[in-house]
Amino acid sequence: MKAVILLSGGLDSCTVLYQALAEGCECYTISFDYQQRHRRELHSALAIAQKANVIQHQVVSFDLRQWGGSALTDDSIDLPTGRSLEEMSQNIPVTYVPARNTIFLSFALAYAETIKAERIYIGVNALDYSGYPDCRPDYIKAMQEVFRLGTKQGLEGKPVKIVTPLLYLKKAEIIQLGNRLGVPWELTWSCYAGGDVACGVCDSCRLRLAAFAELGLKDPLPYAQNSN
Amino acid sequence: MKAVILLSGGLDSCTVLYQALAEGCECYTISFDYQQRHRRELHSALAIAQKANVIQHQVVSFDLRQWGGSALTDDSIDLPTGRSLEEMSQNIPVTYVPARNTIFLSFALAYAETIKAERIYIGVNALDYSGYPDCRPDYIKAMQEVFRLGTKQGLEGKPVKIVTPLLYLKKAEIIQLGNRLGVPWELTWSCYAGGDVACGVCDSCRLRLAAFAELGLKDPLPYAQNSN
Repeated sequence: MKAVILLSGGLDSCTVLYQALAEGCECYTISFDYQQRHRRELHSALAIAQKANVIQHQVVSFDLRQWGGSALTDDSIDLPTGRSLEEMSQNIPVTYVPARNTIFLSFALAYAETIKAERIYIGVNALDYSGYPDCRPDYIKAMQEVFRLGTKQGLEGKPVKIVTPLLYLKKAEIIQLGNRLGVPWELTWSCYAGGDVACGVCDSCRLRLAAFAELGLKDPLPYAQNSN
Repeated sequence: MKAVILLSGGLDSCTVLYQALAEGCECYTISFDYQQRHRRELHSALAIAQKANVIQHQVVSFDLRQWGGSALTDDSIDLPTGRSLEEMSQNIPVTYVPARNTIFLSFALAYAETIKAERIYIGVNALDYSGYPDCRPDYIKAMQEVFRLGTKQGLEGKPVKIVTPLLYLKKAEIIQLGNRLGVPWELTWSCYAGGDVACGVCDSCRLRLAAFAELGLKDPLPYAQNSN
């Protein structure tokens, strides 16, 4: 079965790719260059796609800096650093990018319908979701309805199915799953800061480091700072 | 009230812009350069935005030719020509671009949320819809749910509202509405074929010409061929 996998290059999306491969899917990966602060993740995505020997890897480019509105697409908004996991979960953070997953899923849908894929895999997570509205189960259900009603495949009774293997897993459980699947953590990239080495203090680094620490495991990536 | 208007440069979206202006909106227009065969429409969109004195006009660029799948994004697929209105309405045509309105509405949503707009206007039409699944009322309702569930403004109880003034109008009624609003038809562009002069035989030209003819009006655009 053909599947499109949204591959950011991070820990979650890489695990999802390996899950899709384990389920026997023919995997087509898609990454997005939206002029994000951490465009370095695109190199990781490509390296992972090559390592996993996917059938095709597509990069879609557009510029969300043209209106900004997020710390990831506007350098004048500072990245939050040094926040506790509790602080992270309380509000929608400034790293929220308006409509990002909706844009990503729309392109994945266009790609899937063109190659006649049956599934789209996305690594959204409702537990450690850092307050992002477009990672919640209700949102994914609404997008599934859009897939059913707004496409040719949907009208023909075979809408592309959105698959979310990580939706109800905690970050540490995702790492355990990835370990079972043989995910190459050393190729992944989570840091928001855009440097050559992961910063270790942005929300994304802290969530990742805390999860490895919780399991008593060492994250193979080097970090500029590591408070765990 | 701030509103984002999806402006392709065509007859419908131009009428929608003038309707939004008539309703007192502060209008921000958005166009898409997706490497469509008829990119010429982008010049029309800009000219219309300038004529209408909008607050800001954004062009978002990406490349749907990278996977094709439509006669509008793959030159190896011939455009249908010379079809009757009845033939057009029977099937999803090869000019269908997978997930196009979903992509367009996603970007409009991102833009709207960034500038804190309350509305998005889109010129979809369910009557003369030429078989496109993503122009139907059910589809628009599903996207509205996505807006409600997948955004910060939605979670705060103020989702961006999708406004569809043309949804239940026939093409001739759209022209009548546009005439009342003072729409500059001479600046609009509907032809799919990508030439310097409208072809007059593609589905989009034929639908437009038939509607002007039905009203006993002359379309101010020159055409290479005009069978009406």
